[in-house]
Amino acid sequence: MNILDTKLPRIVIIGGGFAGISFIKQIQKEAFQIVLFDRNNYHTFQPLLYQVSTAGLEPDSISYPLRKIFRNNKNFHFRMAEVEHINPTTKTIETSIGSLAYDHLIIASGSTTNFFGNKSIEEKSMPMKTVPHSLNIRSLMLQNIEEADLTTDVAKRRSLLNFVIAGAGPTGVELAGALAEFKRGILENDYPSISEDEMQVHLLEGADRVLPPMSKKSSTKALYFLEKLGVQVHLNTFVKEYDGHTVSTNSGVQFHTATFIWAAGVTGASIQGLDGEALVKRANRYQVNEYNTVEGYKDIYALGDIAIMKSEGYPNGHPMVAQPAIQQGKNLGKNFKRVLHGKSMKPFVYFDKGSMATIGRNKAVVDIKNLNFSGFIAWFIWMFVHLWFLVGFRNRMVTFFNWTYNYINYDKAARLIIRPFKRKV
Amino acid sequence: MNILDTKLPRIVIIGGGFAGISFIKQIQKEAFQIVLFDRNNYHTFQPLLYQVSTAGLEPDSISYPLRKIFRNNKNFHFRMAEVEHINPTTKTIETSIGSLAYDHLIIASGSTTNFFGNKSIEEKSMPMKTVPHSLNIRSLMLQNIEEADLTTDVAKRRSLLNFVIAGAGPTGVELAGALAEFKRGILENDYPSISEDEMQVHLLEGADRVLPPMSKKSSTKALYFLEKLGVQVHLNTFVKEYDGHTVSTNSGVQFHTATFIWAAGVTGASIQGLDGEALVKRANRYQVNEYNTVEGYKDIYALGDIAIMKSEGYPNGHPMVAQPAIQQGKNLGKNFKRVLHGKSMKPFVYFDKGSMATIGRNKAVVDIKNLNFSGFIAWFIWMFVHLWFLVGFRNRMVTFFNWTYNYINYDKAARLIIRPFKRKV
Repeated sequence: MNILDTKLPRIVIIGGGFAGISFIKQIQKEAFQIVLFDRNNYHTFQPLLYQVSTAGLEPDSISYPLRKIFRNNKNFHFRMAEVEHINPTTKTIETSIGSLAYDHLIIASGSTTNFFGNKSIEEKSMPMKTVPHSLNIRSLMLQNIEEADLTTDVAKRRSLLNFVIAGAGPTGVELAGALAEFKRGILENDYPSISEDEMQVHLLEGADRVLPPMSKKSSTKALYFLEKLGVQVHLNTFVKEYDGHTVSTNSGVQFHTATFIWAAGVTGASIQGLDGEALVKRANRYQVNEYNTVEGYKDIYALGDIAIMKSEGYPNGHPMVAQPAIQQGKNLGKNFKRVLHGKSMKPFVYFDKGSMATIGRNKAVVDIKNLNFSGFIAWFIWMFVHLWFLVGFRNRMVTFFNWTYNYINYDKAARLIIRPFKRKV
Repeated sequence: MNILDTKLPRIVIIGGGFAGISFIKQIQKEAFQIVLFDRNNYHTFQPLLYQVSTAGLEPDSISYPLRKIFRNNKNFHFRMAEVEHINPTTKTIETSIGSLAYDHLIIASGSTTNFFGNKSIEEKSMPMKTVPHSLNIRSLMLQNIEEADLTTDVAKRRSLLNFVIAGAGPTGVELAGALAEFKRGILENDYPSISEDEMQVHLLEGADRVLPPMSKKSSTKALYFLEKLGVQVHLNTFVKEYDGHTVSTNSGVQFHTATFIWAAGVTGASIQGLDGEALVKRANRYQVNEYNTVEGYKDIYALGDIAIMKSEGYPNGHPMVAQPAIQQGKNLGKNFKRVLHGKSMKPFVYFDKGSMATIGRNKAVVDIKNLNFSGFIAWFIWMFVHLWFLVGFRNRMVTFFNWTYNYINYDKAARLIIRPFKRKV
């Protein structure tokens, strides 16, 4: 592969998500050659994908060109490619554009949708882990509503206007809430021949409460908000099958729907090549020590979703969300600098900043330490935090403007079917 | 087709472009049932498509949901479908979702890319008449630059960084200018291993000057601006063939390029069913009288690009741009109202508001009557007029913000390869 020769040690980073970027920011001014691999030329702000799916934001508001983040650094190189294999013995990686040697390898490849081996769900449901996924959901939702407006077949119409989401984690809850608001704000205005009651949003969850990782108080409040918006929540419900028309569940209840969104789980996006011990197979994540070094390897590190660091309070690793990724990236970057300057590495300590989810306008829940609160203030904090963490001044401004506009007008402006979604037959 | 029964006379409009919307705005409060057909659920502001192609604006900034424009009108119905055939004897249309009777039919189907029967160009070049076309160009441009960054094959690298545009009308000129600015603002910052000189923009034009419909003074000035930005303009040059690698021209000069954009002509998007006399075959446009009635028919009208109204000063019909479409739509709408209130129709008189094109920052040309001017003031007027005609407050604000941001930062923020363009093999 065509990479400028240099005397500097080469750090190869796989993945331009929260972890990868946070790591590079720390070390970019140090004496390293940095090569970042990503299959996309942009960073995705995943917590807001659901707003792209529901026509509230455009993809460029939550994406940022990776090259631009580090554009002032001469030792930074970006490669838009897929990393296919790691060869730890030769210290090289195989990619879709050739092979490359590394001195240090940082695996920050994140996670992917977990279908738990269920082929029918994998083939027929709509996942939501990437920007194209979200655009597919946006198109399908709008196409189905247009089609429902045309048909006189009652059963077909009901299926087209029935939206079923599996998984009541933050993604599923936020998506369900946004769909319910779409129904309220848009459907009754733009589709006079569809009555509001005809559109149904069902949220299915295997656990006995929504937002299982959050406090019980927040779960209860979130459920209240969801039901207030008209979302029908089904707890203790596992999906068995989806044939493209009907979702079958463990309870025997069936849902006839043309739109089944799968937000029920993620699994590590592991890469071939590392030996058995390193990979926790059940989770597809790499076991790392407190310095994020992959078990059994010396110059290979894993960060964020793809890493399992067992520690007190986190026997199965940290939650697969943005904060551990950002903090691990930062700590590892600092450790690289420490070593460079003759100091010793510091072990990673996770600082739990809390968690939050928004259900709709003025409706959110926040857990910070032992503090739980909800409603308008929680919603306002949610907005502020998400704007703060968006990459780029332009993205923040455009998002802020769209949110203000949507808030005032009960509108979602991006309801455009630009690339119609073609159903798999 | 499922349309509410009513005693009101039914007007069917084919196409939600400038003409169709301008017509409906006039008659929407009158006693008509209005049914609008469009294959997309959004109106496209075509004059700014080139900014989507060059990553300056996102598609939702120049598109607007058609349902939303007329959302307060109970007698307005939107159908996202393709109109396939007109049966004037039975006064019905055949569409992709069934047939429908009309009392009045308004054809406002616009125009489509004209390949002049050249199959190689049709198959291998990139047209730019729709939002998906523009997104394809954006992806391809960025993919080619990424690929060029990787290859050491000199010929391949040159071809990937060579951008060839056929047609120096406003579309071709604006696109060439924006590509040249992309090179200046983005390439040198984000792609340190590509030198600015390696990217070439060629603009090919069959006539002996750029912007042939404008004044000679503006053509000269536009050429000056283009060359100042580094665009290589080739006049009196006709494209003979493009095999996916090489553009062959009448002059014998060849261009090796992976990106050949075809902006050299449009033709009417006519619909099957109207008799021979009505359709001017050479142009695929319907011949209309001064009331926009299609030659030989009583209740069928054609507006905008699809209509040829011969008049003094316009022996081949009006130019196929926004203004005649908007004005004809307005005049026909007013005539419908006049007839409804017992008055007689007024013939259409075209008011030429002038024409303009922008080449780059602070660089535009404007012709108004016998007045021609260029430079910063022309550029400022161009921006103001385009913002003014954009549909929707949100679109205007987001576009204005993006322009300001891009102007200050020499940036184009939407350079995301969201759906990679797959070359036809």
